[in-house]
Amino acid sequence: MSPEARPYDIAGLKARLGGIRTEENPALVRQKSRDFYWYSPTLKRQLDAVSGDIVAFPASEEGVLAVLAACHALAIPVTPRGAGTGNYGQAMPLDGGLVLDLSGLDRVREIGPGRVRAQAGAIIADIDAACAASGQELRLHPSTYRTASIGGFIAGGSGGVGSISWGGLRDLGNILSLRIATMEASPRILELTGEEVQTVSHAYGTNGIIIEVEMPLAPAYGWIDAIIGFEDFAEAAAYANALGEQDAILKKLISVIAAPVPQSYFLRHRKYLPDGLHVVLVMVAPIARAAFESFTRRWNARPLFRSDLVGPEEAKGLPPLYELAWNHTTLRALRVDPSITYLQTLYPFPDQLALVARIHERLGDEVPAHLEFVRFDGRITCFGLPLIRFTSEQRLEEIVTLHEQLGIPVFNPHRYTLEEGGMKQTDAVQLAFKREADPQGLLNPGKMIAWDHPDFDFGAGRTYLFPGLQRHAAASDATGSAA
Amino acid sequence: MSPEARPYDIAGLKARLGGIRTEENPALVRQKSRDFYWYSPTLKRQLDAVSGDIVAFPASEEGVLAVLAACHALAIPVTPRGAGTGNYGQAMPLDGGLVLDLSGLDRVREIGPGRVRAQAGAIIADIDAACAASGQELRLHPSTYRTASIGGFIAGGSGGVGSISWGGLRDLGNILSLRIATMEASPRILELTGEEVQTVSHAYGTNGIIIEVEMPLAPAYGWIDAIIGFEDFAEAAAYANALGEQDAILKKLISVIAAPVPQSYFLRHRKYLPDGLHVVLVMVAPIARAAFESFTRRWNARPLFRSDLVGPEEAKGLPPLYELAWNHTTLRALRVDPSITYLQTLYPFPDQLALVARIHERLGDEVPAHLEFVRFDGRITCFGLPLIRFTSEQRLEEIVTLHEQLGIPVFNPHRYTLEEGGMKQTDAVQLAFKREADPQGLLNPGKMIAWDHPDFDFGAGRTYLFPGLQRHAAASDATGSAA
Repeated sequence: MSPEARPYDIAGLKARLGGIRTEENPALVRQKSRDFYWYSPTLKRQLDAVSGDIVAFPASEEGVLAVLAACHALAIPVTPRGAGTGNYGQAMPLDGGLVLDLSGLDRVREIGPGRVRAQAGAIIADIDAACAASGQELRLHPSTYRTASIGGFIAGGSGGVGSISWGGLRDLGNILSLRIATMEASPRILELTGEEVQTVSHAYGTNGIIIEVEMPLAPAYGWIDAIIGFEDFAEAAAYANALGEQDAILKKLISVIAAPVPQSYFLRHRKYLPDGLHVVLVMVAPIARAAFESFTRRWNARPLFRSDLVGPEEAKGLPPLYELAWNHTTLRALRVDPSITYLQTLYPFPDQLALVARIHERLGDEVPAHLEFVRFDGRITCFGLPLIRFTSEQRLEEIVTLHEQLGIPVFNPHRYTLEEGGMKQTDAVQLAFKREADPQGLLNPGKMIAWDHPDFDFGAGRTYLFPGLQRHAAASDATGSAA
Repeated sequence: MSPEARPYDIAGLKARLGGIRTEENPALVRQKSRDFYWYSPTLKRQLDAVSGDIVAFPASEEGVLAVLAACHALAIPVTPRGAGTGNYGQAMPLDGGLVLDLSGLDRVREIGPGRVRAQAGAIIADIDAACAASGQELRLHPSTYRTASIGGFIAGGSGGVGSISWGGLRDLGNILSLRIATMEASPRILELTGEEVQTVSHAYGTNGIIIEVEMPLAPAYGWIDAIIGFEDFAEAAAYANALGEQDAILKKLISVIAAPVPQSYFLRHRKYLPDGLHVVLVMVAPIARAAFESFTRRWNARPLFRSDLVGPEEAKGLPPLYELAWNHTTLRALRVDPSITYLQTLYPFPDQLALVARIHERLGDEVPAHLEFVRFDGRITCFGLPLIRFTSEQRLEEIVTLHEQLGIPVFNPHRYTLEEGGMKQTDAVQLAFKREADPQGLLNPGKMIAWDHPDFDFGAGRTYLFPGLQRHAAASDATGSAA
């Protein structure tokens, strides 16, 4: 395909970008235009053809500003990208244009007591490695700890490992400040603190480019990985809930996974997992060892694995426990059975255990249970990340509806928009900030329904389909055969 | 009085104690035989005459064992004592005998990541000072931080400053291990970990002498002291509760104190406290500053004081905020108005705010409200430490009954026994351990009803009166005139 065939003036853009590295090889651009959207069969169908036209790799804040100014001048959409570990197409350029790869902004700038300042593209595990000398680590991380960038986590994640102690990224105080660039003729740099950070956190980069972040730190004692087995699923869930409520036992993860998921998909831990047992995965601080053991002895529980009790030889081949939890549970299932998909739900306090039992009875083997216990508004409750033995998109929608009918909100991971994947309503604060920071609507188009289609009726049961996606998909089909 | 008149063979005891320092001067022994029991007019009446016969000041574990062996041989009661900052006569020898002053065992033995090991007599603030170089501090401390010993806190306290983040001492994991000595012919040393620590924590030294403790540590970032004013008391309580539920805002104290208590009794902060305002005292981590400010702006609140915003000159004359909170609130009131006393209550989740409102309306000015918000079994709720404008013991009992009738449990601070000051029932674990560790019943006699009077009916509405207290009081009256 010749550059002339493209809807955007990519040649003109390149002329303006001077010393900034770019990539136009279609296969490479396509690779940098995707994330783990394929966990969802729906998103796989909708987004498979998505690709940007060019990728830019700035290595500094000045470089980011130069890219934004150039794209603004030529009305070229910009979709920011960290490590591409999202699951909802957050970093996929639905309307083509430029993919802004921020992985070159990877410096850890400053570490102080309880805080770290790093550039948005820094890998989360690398930030923790830099903080280790001070005995500190990040409060929260996704299960993609070793690959995800901190900026991507803030722009597209919600919490994860550590949420059992600290709540989620939405909670005031879990993001100290954000340094962002606006999408204007002369892009500005803004520093957001306090609740201002919520205007751009979990906004998929639709209303500002996160350049640098300041995050709170917690003490890094190291963590003991423990797996506890239960014959009864309800008891496993009750144990996890009660352990979460132990205020003095310091922990970073409490996951409940129903049999036969662990036995079928946790291949490298297989020998520790007797058939039929439901498991609870726990990351607990070494100082809490004796308390944790005392607590566990009160239950009809079978300790199956402890990372501090296996030899170093045996430990070598085992992934850390957080790589069996959160969306890594789904990933491990998908590796064995590509037909698996999943859901994201919230079991509201105080009825979480009753609701878990009800949905588990109702959907049984088709939707194997996976719970992640968290602090949520000061109480312990759990999210669900159940696996789904996928049959059809229609059945998937039925399963969503069934949850909602029982009073279990669904954060639908089979939607690429902020609203449909979230609370199914306009976030007025994010929308207002987009008007200020991206008046032309060039940042990550198609992800914020409130911007593209202010009158969209979230109650009507229809799925939003971004017009640009259809246009781009058609263009991509045309170019795909030529590439 | 001649030594022969005493019921115990003190002369024989001294002969056995060799190089251990002792004190028999009646005025000094009497001073070492009391604590802050006089906060309660009831305990003041009952315990004013209490005194031991001799005080021993061992400076080592071996010294403690020697004292215990000698007292055991001569059947002399032993009442252990830290700094004497308790409020329920915990360290008062109801049956006379020896007071075991542990203040000589004051070494901080070992500091590691998340843990400290110290001797029981170490002052809490001194332990924190020793931990400061590692950037750590104790999770929990009483308002008597600068004077109380760690052993006394564990033996007679329940939580306090820090409980809003970590729960109480009763929670598994807030005491890592305890090294104790038994009261036998050949006293043994036992190490208790996990839930075993609960056998001797909050047992007033009735079933073992705490010699050394291992406690968990938290990061020491320093704390900002903030006072927030509210025109409406219910809104102050709601703000405090909601701040407690902010999982990501790191805090160490949230106290609510109804007007006119702050204005009348917080003399050194007086100029920050406009008449009529109810106040919330907050200790918040510097990293949470912006989040805390954002959160507070959502309320109809008036920021009155911030320790990080006053100059060093101004700050010099001000006590730390924790010395306005917990039982220091009562102390400050007592210094101005000696007729004041107080109560200890629990407002059970989830009805805490409704119950607070109900009792506040009902008892109004006679019982000015003072709430301490805490984590309790994984939820945020509050204890009450209301002041009471004392008129009579009978009215005091009526106020207790009124709380209980409304569903507000009272931990009665006008009782010197474990059971009556606690859950009004036998602690079977502590009793069983006493049978093992103190078979002769020589440790702190009169404090554990289950031991002295197994058939006592907690439901009968009578107050337990230790027979030894009457005997001793009579002896003390006799010697008092001779001294």
